[in-house]
Amino acid sequence: MRIANLENRAVLLVSDEHGIDVEAASSGRFGPDLAGVYERWEEFTAWAGNLTDTPADAVVDRGLLGSPSPAPRQVFAIGLNYSAHAKESGFAQPDTLPPVFTKFLTCITGPDTAVVLPEGGNTDWEVELVAVIGKEAKDVSAADAWDYVAGLSIGQDISERLSQLRGPAPQFGLGKSFPGFGPVGPWLVTPDEFRNPDNLEIGCSIDGEEVQKGRTSELIFSVPALVEGLSQTVPLLPGDIIFTGTPAGVGLGRNPQRFIQPGETLVSRIEGIGEMTQMFISAGN
Amino acid sequence: MRIANLENRAVLLVSDEHGIDVEAASSGRFGPDLAGVYERWEEFTAWAGNLTDTPADAVVDRGLLGSPSPAPRQVFAIGLNYSAHAKESGFAQPDTLPPVFTKFLTCITGPDTAVVLPEGGNTDWEVELVAVIGKEAKDVSAADAWDYVAGLSIGQDISERLSQLRGPAPQFGLGKSFPGFGPVGPWLVTPDEFRNPDNLEIGCSIDGEEVQKGRTSELIFSVPALVEGLSQTVPLLPGDIIFTGTPAGVGLGRNPQRFIQPGETLVSRIEGIGEMTQMFISAGN
Repeated sequence: MRIANLENRAVLLVSDEHGIDVEAASSGRFGPDLAGVYERWEEFTAWAGNLTDTPADAVVDRGLLGSPSPAPRQVFAIGLNYSAHAKESGFAQPDTLPPVFTKFLTCITGPDTAVVLPEGGNTDWEVELVAVIGKEAKDVSAADAWDYVAGLSIGQDISERLSQLRGPAPQFGLGKSFPGFGPVGPWLVTPDEFRNPDNLEIGCSIDGEEVQKGRTSELIFSVPALVEGLSQTVPLLPGDIIFTGTPAGVGLGRNPQRFIQPGETLVSRIEGIGEMTQMFISAGN
Repeated sequence: MRIANLENRAVLLVSDEHGIDVEAASSGRFGPDLAGVYERWEEFTAWAGNLTDTPADAVVDRGLLGSPSPAPRQVFAIGLNYSAHAKESGFAQPDTLPPVFTKFLTCITGPDTAVVLPEGGNTDWEVELVAVIGKEAKDVSAADAWDYVAGLSIGQDISERLSQLRGPAPQFGLGKSFPGFGPVGPWLVTPDEFRNPDNLEIGCSIDGEEVQKGRTSELIFSVPALVEGLSQTVPLLPGDIIFTGTPAGVGLGRNPQRFIQPGETLVSRIEGIGEMTQMFISAGN
């Protein structure tokens, strides 16, 4: 099952172009807001699994898609969760749960956007697999963790490196939370849609040049391991988002370093989910 | 003006023991939830300022008080914002905006609570001045910043040092977000109630022994400077919370180090606001 946030309405997709308006098809039992759908995720998926002969009354306009979880109460972001990326960033590989920070809510957007580059010129890309929680999780084991995940999506953990790395201690959160720095989408794909949700090709390209490519099987802490590790400290709530970390290939780790320039287009892809597109413009535009 | 969250209802205080139920007194125009009150903060304060002869129909039971902002969309927490605390923590004094992290929403509670100590035995205290945003703020100057602050409260940025400091990079957010680690209260006090809201005595004690004492005039980045600095990157939303940082005197910085023991009681105080109390119990209880 795939579900999208189309103009703040939950839509069950039947193709990339068409879907079923959840509120109308359920006669108001669910929707329109996706936050409420995640609160009753098991009940919702049972209902949606029994839908038959329902007309696909919603046309998917990509420009009108929002984040598949538009109002998460908690946004977890994981640092240094691929070995090669930890190395290119100058850190040791984590042997306990990697650094956990947040991307502040106001930076979360839908999948296809224009992003204003902050001053400084050190804005970098980080394609990431994103997991959305579908059931409150506390002290959940990795073996059970997929039962608590509503589905997967693509995220970009866009990062302004000057802001992130200045000062006496790194501040991941603020430098990664400029407006538009947390696109998520294009939709949520439930775990059962994948042959193996722990092994997906992931990558991104700038103006057609591939800059990151990896597989989520290379995550040091997989989605189930993250749900286990996070839920030992913090209860995870329906709709909460986990940015799971980025593979190698960011601009900061290159020699010479490379950062995003005005006019460039970033396309992020994950196997079995799709792709999303950010166009970058300068603050002066 | 002082406003409290009494069993998820907004209450305008007339004393520490009595208040006016906002929803009833406004015939449903405002309340009961405080999140909605912050969304219309200027309209609300104008209405509340004109109240006359309204009966104080609500009895304040301290055990039923919740956080004065129960559903912030963004919780900002500031590290190393007093010189002596930066020094005792082994960091240089920040000359740009200090480290910004989050306390995840599920740890935010009301003022008087029992807190379960996580395993490890390294739980520490950090009394902090807390500011609650009353108007959306983007690129606000320090000179104008108080106009965007609904009011002030007391916070404890309780911290599990093992979890916070392990791994290849510090992860302030997770080690400071165990359940109950973010008490806020006992109520919100509007800035006009203080002779000088930038110079308040702040401190806390354990079982009657004073362990932290300072003045908010010693903040490296004051409340207005934080609103200016944060709002240059992130739009601040009504109801958002800023934990402004802690003065010297935490257990981590002592010789020998000292951490909170089961059975100990922590009382946190700020001049002109009041006090709040945490009792600590072991996980086995």
